[in-house]
Amino acid sequence: MSRVTIGLLGCGTVGRGFVELVERERARICARHGVDLHIKKILVRDETKERAGVDRRLLTTAALDVLDDGCDVIVELIGGVHSAGAFIRRAIANKRSVVTANKALLAASGSELFASADAHGVTIGFEASVCGAIPIVRVLQHGLAGDQIDAIRGVVNGTCNYVLSRMEEGTTFADALRCAQERGFAEADATLDVDGEDAAQKMRILASLAFDAPIVQERVVGIRWITQQHIERARAGGNVIRLVASVERVASGVALRVEPCELDANDPLANVKDENNAVIVRGRAAGEIVLCGKGAGALPTASAVLSDVIAVSCI
Amino acid sequence: MSRVTIGLLGCGTVGRGFVELVERERARICARHGVDLHIKKILVRDETKERAGVDRRLLTTAALDVLDDGCDVIVELIGGVHSAGAFIRRAIANKRSVVTANKALLAASGSELFASADAHGVTIGFEASVCGAIPIVRVLQHGLAGDQIDAIRGVVNGTCNYVLSRMEEGTTFADALRCAQERGFAEADATLDVDGEDAAQKMRILASLAFDAPIVQERVVGIRWITQQHIERARAGGNVIRLVASVERVASGVALRVEPCELDANDPLANVKDENNAVIVRGRAAGEIVLCGKGAGALPTASAVLSDVIAVSCI
Repeated sequence: MSRVTIGLLGCGTVGRGFVELVERERARICARHGVDLHIKKILVRDETKERAGVDRRLLTTAALDVLDDGCDVIVELIGGVHSAGAFIRRAIANKRSVVTANKALLAASGSELFASADAHGVTIGFEASVCGAIPIVRVLQHGLAGDQIDAIRGVVNGTCNYVLSRMEEGTTFADALRCAQERGFAEADATLDVDGEDAAQKMRILASLAFDAPIVQERVVGIRWITQQHIERARAGGNVIRLVASVERVASGVALRVEPCELDANDPLANVKDENNAVIVRGRAAGEIVLCGKGAGALPTASAVLSDVIAVSCI
Repeated sequence: MSRVTIGLLGCGTVGRGFVELVERERARICARHGVDLHIKKILVRDETKERAGVDRRLLTTAALDVLDDGCDVIVELIGGVHSAGAFIRRAIANKRSVVTANKALLAASGSELFASADAHGVTIGFEASVCGAIPIVRVLQHGLAGDQIDAIRGVVNGTCNYVLSRMEEGTTFADALRCAQERGFAEADATLDVDGEDAAQKMRILASLAFDAPIVQERVVGIRWITQQHIERARAGGNVIRLVASVERVASGVALRVEPCELDANDPLANVKDENNAVIVRGRAAGEIVLCGKGAGALPTASAVLSDVIAVSCI
């Protein structure tokens, strides 16, 4: 049994879910994986805020209190690229493995961070950065390692899918988006979601795992222009509209596309409802593998973070 | 770059698929995973048989030629429990990691073999033993490691699903089964398939990965008694019949069930057609994760074997 200490950066929705899950699963993880996980310090912006289930004595507002405290693993859940990037760089320089759910940072600086982690002999776990609870990162890294991946296609933005699902019931775009925000799927500023950029970031991460080739074509269209008329016209033909994101091999590299598509009822992506996500991986030998599940939410995302913490602790 | 030699036991459908895939993917695997895979010896029953794409000079009919040749990894694709078990025990005693697709052997002797592998410091990869190309073993071992699994439910026998899919089109049970045999999904003796025992073996393997608890209830019913009338009656209610296999936590351990069920169209398992497989994992935090894909076939199964070979070579 090895004791593993965790420094947690950020204690928002996913951070609190992670704290809850570590407590709940500790005994099972000890027994099954031989690691005894303990959260040692938690970086927050405001120490005085009420956080149910979180031990106040662990909180600090000073990042270095967490980063330089000798924790075995640093879990970054603050989001954004600037502070998060600086903290992760310092953790790597300190030779600590890092687990992050930060897709924006990986999309912006992934190759630099992975190279630095390699050079320092540590690992970056990032399962939670793409599609919440769906273990798509691990499936691409390991589960389908024996096969050449030809294409990946999916519904990977829960906010857009929730909005489109509500519009199918007659709700307007604006009302559906507000509802997504109230239910906590969409950020207060949902621009990255509805413009397709969030989906594009996720596909860039998946492409880097699946293909040893650069992205040479990009077309990213969001759902802002979709009206009730588009939805009705699709429905009249027995179809539905989904924001479909894809990456596929082309002659000179990889083509990335994010755009609303009309899908017939037999398409596995047509049946993805509300805030769920689905990813279809097409392997040359394996054929199509479909993975569906919760693409967001505190506990589903925290479960992906925790799986990564176990993986980096067991290396 | 490390050179990894493979001793292959068996060169039937999946074995030939594996030989083909190793050749085709060698350069990509070198570049991506840093291992240079070479098949050094292949055990066959008949050296004179024509096998397209297989180098005759690698063939031998003497198991010890393969097992005691110093290969880094032994890949067992002969099936059955007696010889296969003896060969795997010898490979482990020789401190060689093993990759196998043999669910019958693991169902019969899994705990003994895994304990022996542990004691000898080697690994047994068995992704291909359950659901062909679907990386369900790895997802349970690692991808969902952070979560408590409450239940697993799936369509895990391609032969039964193919037969039920054909019966929906009016084919009789006997004709549908013959057709599955001609197309190579079903064994000449399909008893284990149609009686539900194959599905039960797969669920026992998944239960051992998901739960730290014994199976205390078992109910295994096959599809032999399903008639056109059952199919019609289900269809009249908008439903379909599938052979549903499940394991779930109960008070004293785990309950295993395999039986034909009438499913409504919204059930993800209702949409699994032909020889495809699907598995739904319900995690306490992650919610439901659905995985679908090809549950059998030479190249899909070989891709799972090869992913395991890469994994055991990279440890």
